[in-house]
Amino acid sequence: MSRLADPDRLRALLDTFAALSEPDSGPGVTRLAYTPLERDAHAVFAARLADLGAVVRTDAAGNTLAELAGTDPAAPAIGTGSHLDSVPNAGRFDGIAGAAAAVETARLIREHEVAHRHPLRFVVFAAEEGARFGQACTGSRIVAGLTGPDDLREKRDAEGVSLAEAMSAVGFDPALVGDARWDPADWAGFVELHIEQGAVLESEGRRVGVVDTISGSTRLRFELTGRASHSGGTPMHLRADAAAAAAEIVLLVESVATHAAAGGTRATVGRIDIAPGSITTIAGAASLWVDVRGLDRGEQQRAAAEIVERAAAACDRRGVGFTSHPLAETPPVPLPAAVRDVLVATCADLGIDPTVLASGASHDAQQVNHVTPTGMIFVPSRDGISHDPAESTDIDDLALGTTVLAAGLLRLDAELP
Amino acid sequence: MSRLADPDRLRALLDTFAALSEPDSGPGVTRLAYTPLERDAHAVFAARLADLGAVVRTDAAGNTLAELAGTDPAAPAIGTGSHLDSVPNAGRFDGIAGAAAAVETARLIREHEVAHRHPLRFVVFAAEEGARFGQACTGSRIVAGLTGPDDLREKRDAEGVSLAEAMSAVGFDPALVGDARWDPADWAGFVELHIEQGAVLESEGRRVGVVDTISGSTRLRFELTGRASHSGGTPMHLRADAAAAAAEIVLLVESVATHAAAGGTRATVGRIDIAPGSITTIAGAASLWVDVRGLDRGEQQRAAAEIVERAAAACDRRGVGFTSHPLAETPPVPLPAAVRDVLVATCADLGIDPTVLASGASHDAQQVNHVTPTGMIFVPSRDGISHDPAESTDIDDLALGTTVLAAGLLRLDAELP
Repeated sequence: MSRLADPDRLRALLDTFAALSEPDSGPGVTRLAYTPLERDAHAVFAARLADLGAVVRTDAAGNTLAELAGTDPAAPAIGTGSHLDSVPNAGRFDGIAGAAAAVETARLIREHEVAHRHPLRFVVFAAEEGARFGQACTGSRIVAGLTGPDDLREKRDAEGVSLAEAMSAVGFDPALVGDARWDPADWAGFVELHIEQGAVLESEGRRVGVVDTISGSTRLRFELTGRASHSGGTPMHLRADAAAAAAEIVLLVESVATHAAAGGTRATVGRIDIAPGSITTIAGAASLWVDVRGLDRGEQQRAAAEIVERAAAACDRRGVGFTSHPLAETPPVPLPAAVRDVLVATCADLGIDPTVLASGASHDAQQVNHVTPTGMIFVPSRDGISHDPAESTDIDDLALGTTVLAAGLLRLDAELP
Repeated sequence: MSRLADPDRLRALLDTFAALSEPDSGPGVTRLAYTPLERDAHAVFAARLADLGAVVRTDAAGNTLAELAGTDPAAPAIGTGSHLDSVPNAGRFDGIAGAAAAVETARLIREHEVAHRHPLRFVVFAAEEGARFGQACTGSRIVAGLTGPDDLREKRDAEGVSLAEAMSAVGFDPALVGDARWDPADWAGFVELHIEQGAVLESEGRRVGVVDTISGSTRLRFELTGRASHSGGTPMHLRADAAAAAAEIVLLVESVATHAAAGGTRATVGRIDIAPGSITTIAGAASLWVDVRGLDRGEQQRAAAEIVERAAAACDRRGVGFTSHPLAETPPVPLPAAVRDVLVATCADLGIDPTVLASGASHDAQQVNHVTPTGMIFVPSRDGISHDPAESTDIDDLALGTTVLAAGLLRLDAELP
């Protein structure tokens, strides 16, 4: 298919979604998992696909699926899509780019009356971001059978609300999420378009990437217990300063990842809570949230173990108590060569020279890949910035990626059984 | 006077004040500056002193002064007292120990009908803690003429409420605080009893300390601007991580103070705010609150300047923006030898071997010393802990310190003109 995705339509869709943001939440977009605003965004997606003649349904997990029937009623489906929730103070592209690309793909196919043998499914998953509940990809984990009711009761946000309670509050029964599970026999393949959230494409001057591996993530929470004491009254040598211990840990996390960087490992402390948090009080407690990403499972686990060991030792030297709590563990996922090769060939057909690269971020695609062979298309992120109001992707790059997506899905339609 | 302070009465007073704490504010006592709860505590103090026959008044700054007339109507006053506000989640001794000691001293003098030539004034100052507004000793700074209406309009709490607005909300007109200023001719001397908030007395096995110097405090806020980005998508070498820069600063603050420790300098980062504070986002911004305490003005300023210089360089190396904002600057104050010698001699009379030591914390005493010669008595803090629910002082030590206070005031009464 030589029809090209329309940048103006994509921009208008991005604007529509960006307007759905929590009031008084500061800069950027804030549309957290399992909130009324996330549901509003799903409703917009559902309405657009319904307008295009798709049959739309929402599953027990809050995922929205819209289907354009194929010419062979017995054929399994080929899907595309991403997510519509955001981290706090996010940009307007993460997840949304893939959702907008799905809508635009459906439009291209309908507008040009392109015949396809397989049903095409346009999907937006609920609760992809781990920012609220610590667990990423909840909606896609549910369709892959990786998350069930017990898990939903255990994971809680900063206010103590469980995933199950948040789902109930927006109208879904967490006890029924098993009904949302996908049957592999019902699927032929899946492709997710997403922004890169890194600077590899930009640094190489490429406009489209095809993902070969999605990095895994080991997420940990460290609790440090020092001795709160007066900042003036306590000599330096009599302190058990939880903030200083936390600072040591932040730097050793960085150091471990820097030394492991050749293996693709990245490690970050993105959240630090200090208590009591007063200028005149030595910190009596600190909590740190640590995210270790790896492209190799052994290397990822080794880096996480080294971080825990060195953090415990640093606290021990300072007389600060230390405990480590696992939050989530996702292994790296190599994506199947079959889908990747089709996407690379599609780029070649369109005269595009793609970069084949790893994804540092986790994505719904890696969950879906448990059900059906899945590929990913990346479009560039300006300066590699993401999870920030300054997140940006050139709209022409997004349109080009969407053209690759639409053409790739049709090539899969032709090639898959 | 050989009459001894009563531990049971002191304990009951401490219990009464501890019960005045913000509901749902977590462990310990929370009774912040210029809140209705602080006023309640002042009302309790006023009622106790009125019961003992004192003439009680509240000044324009919210300080409460209670006077027992002396035999010489023309003599200037000798005073004692401390403060009744707390940091968030505080213990029950900081400030309150000196207020309870003042009440017990007044009781001893009245109960035993001890004659004194000077009027004796029992004072509790408002808003001693800097936790809410960044400025410590507001009530005592006002009586010393060091803080005026302009200052009260500028200093604000975390919710943006100014000191002036908070004062108005509890019934004081900030425009009138000039009326609260003390006339040096009206005062002969002042003694504040306080918990040590350090572990020097405990480590030396002493039960009473006499302060020779109150350390100064340079308070700074640092603002760091990094680049928020996805924790998985951003390679280590492409980051501008504000949390990692903040961690470097916490450790260099500690290092500067440790190397300057022989000069009594202490430096602390007690509060760190990281934004956006998500496990999957590299920190785009960080704020740090730094408190540098010194016993020598030059050394304190040198340490603060070294911290700012090295913090700026650390951020620069990381591509993180850095600005430093002064919050408060108090020079160290040597307390007058005349009052200190009387307190040491009083200890000797009572068979107590005191430690003469510096105060790491700032106190109302250093403001009052601008008006009249002032001394301080310290009682031990268990494990040096303060500004924490675990803050504790042996009640018998507090009673012994109160006995020294009462005897010391009467010795000053005999010796001062």
